[in-house]
Amino acid sequence: MTPAVNHEARRQHVASIAAELACDRGLESLTVRNVAAAAGYSTAIVSHYFTDKRDLLLATYRWAADRSTARFEAAEQDGEGLRACVSALLPLDEPRLRDWRVWFAFWGAAASDPELARDQRDRVRSARRRLERILRAGMAAGQLSAGANPTQEARRLLVVVFGVSVQTVFDPAEWTANKQLRFLDRELGDLVAAVNSNGLTRAPRPLITIVT
Amino acid sequence: MTPAVNHEARRQHVASIAAELACDRGLESLTVRNVAAAAGYSTAIVSHYFTDKRDLLLATYRWAADRSTARFEAAEQDGEGLRACVSALLPLDEPRLRDWRVWFAFWGAAASDPELARDQRDRVRSARRRLERILRAGMAAGQLSAGANPTQEARRLLVVVFGVSVQTVFDPAEWTANKQLRFLDRELGDLVAAVNSNGLTRAPRPLITIVT
Repeated sequence: MTPAVNHEARRQHVASIAAELACDRGLESLTVRNVAAAAGYSTAIVSHYFTDKRDLLLATYRWAADRSTARFEAAEQDGEGLRACVSALLPLDEPRLRDWRVWFAFWGAAASDPELARDQRDRVRSARRRLERILRAGMAAGQLSAGANPTQEARRLLVVVFGVSVQTVFDPAEWTANKQLRFLDRELGDLVAAVNSNGLTRAPRPLITIVT
Repeated sequence: MTPAVNHEARRQHVASIAAELACDRGLESLTVRNVAAAAGYSTAIVSHYFTDKRDLLLATYRWAADRSTARFEAAEQDGEGLRACVSALLPLDEPRLRDWRVWFAFWGAAASDPELARDQRDRVRSARRRLERILRAGMAAGQLSAGANPTQEARRLLVVVFGVSVQTVFDPAEWTANKQLRFLDRELGDLVAAVNSNGLTRAPRPLITIVT
């Protein structure tokens, strides 16, 4: 590896360990000292890769957010359609629930820190654009109701994702994976139902397997 | 004041100052030392009222949550109906946006702390029951669509509240008060529209005044 690649790989490795820490013990546990101890590095090494706690926090957030984006893009590239893409964002299994916990730790700082908030804001705006693109493509392909407003629907689907996920983090017994998906299906109802009644759509593909 | 009342009043006062701190500077600023400095007390006094940081954090959260509950109940007691009750929970103005920021600070710890998470979970479950009661009453009074499923609609409306509010905290420019209300109105659409078409409902009362 070149030094630059090695540096980035190390940063990613430390970020992944920091994410575990943030998920298991929350924002306050996310100190250079704790991360170094968990990673088996000296604090000097961790400090070499992260200028300060906020840098560490941002890297941790991005690490979890990138995982989520990768899941979304995998669903998109498999041509699995709107439902699978939105499902990829929900805390349907333990890894995704853990990512949401990392974001909560980050939010504990970002809600009162405009610079950190910007990162979250940009991620959400970008997710909305991606959803809108998928909606337009689905409509063009006759898989989604032609009467839908893609901008409005993308916004609505992200409200569903956040609204369901935030509640799931604090009440996973109430919001099982099946309940999340049933809720999503009702919300997707109008978008998909109109097409079904025209007989234009294929049978739904089997959803991702859920292990709870 | 009796000593007991004095004790509780002091705790509330300190919690209100801690909430300001959590809102402005996030979870990490919420230390006994910082709260004491902001309140003009010694750390010994603050420690007398709060056994530890977690106790302080919980009191801060409850202080903001109680304000929100009071807004909700005021709307309910004024007979303002479902829309006003749900609006009371949204971050439509600065005080409510600040309460949401306090909750984010709390969540930064609660997402990985089952004991704290329980408080949040119980608040949400209780809000859902209150909404369900309002829905049933509105249906019985012919103000809401008779075909609605109150349990399902209460759940859906809380998803809207969380989904909109979480995004608003990080992107208030995108989610202005008017945009939040327009979104809510579309979500209430089916519940109210069926009744409107039957001519059973009164003209909507003017909404709370919004200062942005």
